Amino acid sequence: MADGAPVALLAGGGALPGLLRAALLRRGRAVRVLALRGFAEWTLARQADAVIDILDYKRIFATLEAWAPAEVVLVGTVHRPKPSAFAGALAAFRNREEIAAILGAGDDGLLAGVIRLLEERGLVVGGIHRLAPELLAGAGILGAIAPDEQDHAAAAVGQGVLEALSPFDVGQAVVVAARRVVAVEGPEGTDAMLARARRLRRSSRLRAIHGGVLVKMAKVGQDLRVDLPTIGPRTVVCAARAGLAGIAVGAGTTLIVDTSATIAEADRRGLFLLGIERRPEGGET
Amino acid sequence: MADGAPVALLAGGGALPGLLRAALLRRGRAVRVLALRGFAEWTLARQADAVIDILDYKRIFATLEAWAPAEVVLVGTVHRPKPSAFAGALAAFRNREEIAAILGAGDDGLLAGVIRLLEERGLVVGGIHRLAPELLAGAGILGAIAPDEQDHAAAAVGQGVLEALSPFDVGQAVVVAARRVVAVEGPEGTDAMLARARRLRRSSRLRAIHGGVLVKMAKVGQDLRVDLPTIGPRTVVCAARAGLAGIAVGAGTTLIVDTSATIAEADRRGLFLLGIERRPEGGET
Repeated sequence: MADGAPVALLAGGGALPGLLRAALLRRGRAVRVLALRGFAEWTLARQADAVIDILDYKRIFATLEAWAPAEVVLVGTVHRPKPSAFAGALAAFRNREEIAAILGAGDDGLLAGVIRLLEERGLVVGGIHRLAPELLAGAGILGAIAPDEQDHAAAAVGQGVLEALSPFDVGQAVVVAARRVVAVEGPEGTDAMLARARRLRRSSRLRAIHGGVLVKMAKVGQDLRVDLPTIGPRTVVCAARAGLAGIAVGAGTTLIVDTSATIAEADRRGLFLLGIERRPEGGET
Repeated sequence: MADGAPVALLAGGGALPGLLRAALLRRGRAVRVLALRGFAEWTLARQADAVIDILDYKRIFATLEAWAPAEVVLVGTVHRPKPSAFAGALAAFRNREEIAAILGAGDDGLLAGVIRLLEERGLVVGGIHRLAPELLAGAGILGAIAPDEQDHAAAAVGQGVLEALSPFDVGQAVVVAARRVVAVEGPEGTDAMLARARRLRRSSRLRAIHGGVLVKMAKVGQDLRVDLPTIGPRTVVCAARAGLAGIAVGAGTTLIVDTSATIAEADRRGLFLLGIERRPEGGET
């Protein structure tokens, strides 16, 4: 922070890039925003220093290098491009086998590949968890509602499932009700998984089960510079609609988009919001 | 087989009870069928020695005891009754705390509880895997289509996920495409999970991924007397619609309902059908 070199945000969609920008400015950091066209929200794109197509990799790298940033942060949502488009863009400086390996490796491998490409050009890739930890979930009861014993038990089961699934390229969230795993997140995302839990609850099979907990947290050993698990007010609404009693997130490894709005929504709908600590063996990069 | 005591089938829905009955008769066993009203198929109920409501537990136990069977087999699908109805039926000979524990324990615990109740009355509960192993999937390539290297890799990932999830009360099936876990089965069942995989494939996010494998097998340490993972011709149809390259099942731990029809359907639709062996550490009861 002694030097005036900016933090460069490589910004995709959602509210998070704007919130990170604001948090960094509050901390007195210089910030440059490279908004990815078609992904970044309009309000952010308006404030951005550059708006570039995601496949125009040459301009992206040239722009980032010209800014000579202290760190680059990948922030916001970006949908996976079609392999044909992506492979075409990478082909100029990567051989075909390596591209096929990156694309075939799933999202985890894809993002690791992007970080590697940035680092090979001398750029330092940073993470929100280090630059603005105030955006992450704290530990303990975060809202006005306290989980009961059954909720804690369900959260522990969910944590166990997510830890067991950590070595695999799969989602970061599960729904547990009465020790039963009701849904495991796949590429459909958390909101769609909660919609599924809602439908299951309505069907005869699960009508019997009351309450339930959404558990969302980073994988054990996950590189927290990419794909930080995230919740927000909309997650609370979806969880409430699914009839859940509350949400448990990994303390220090889960982003809360607009913390005060998220907590207010949970309080209003009678859901608890709990930050649970990683067990000792879990490391972070 | 020396004694003439019959095998008693406590029969729920689907084709399996009838297939097991036929297999046992082919083996020269005496068979008695207790069809659960509303669950057992009409063709089976017609051949049954008794048709009893699932909640009329007194008649069920009295009937089974009167038959003095060598073994009782739980076979076919039974939907979980509402806790109110179930608890009411059990209340006569179980205290409320124990019922609550059984009902709260999820399906795994529920079925274990039913076996325990039967065994406490001196009945021996057997399993299809011992009585008619010819109904289970064999090892190796079962149809005309052979999986390629990528398919084997996806099947191995799926096996890893299911092994990691074994301690939890969750489904027995996953879909893996290009090392990415596309869907994990919850209480919705395999066909509904495949419909989800199909929708994901159609959406922009996964259009990129070709092929993919349905992996279905018993949990590590699972009591194979209940809830044997099962596939059949309909599973093949659903997998084909989801754009999958094939199906991998646990050899010796997965039932194939109507093996010849299932293999014919897979051959016709160009899907491989693979029986994979459990790794050494996996035990069975």
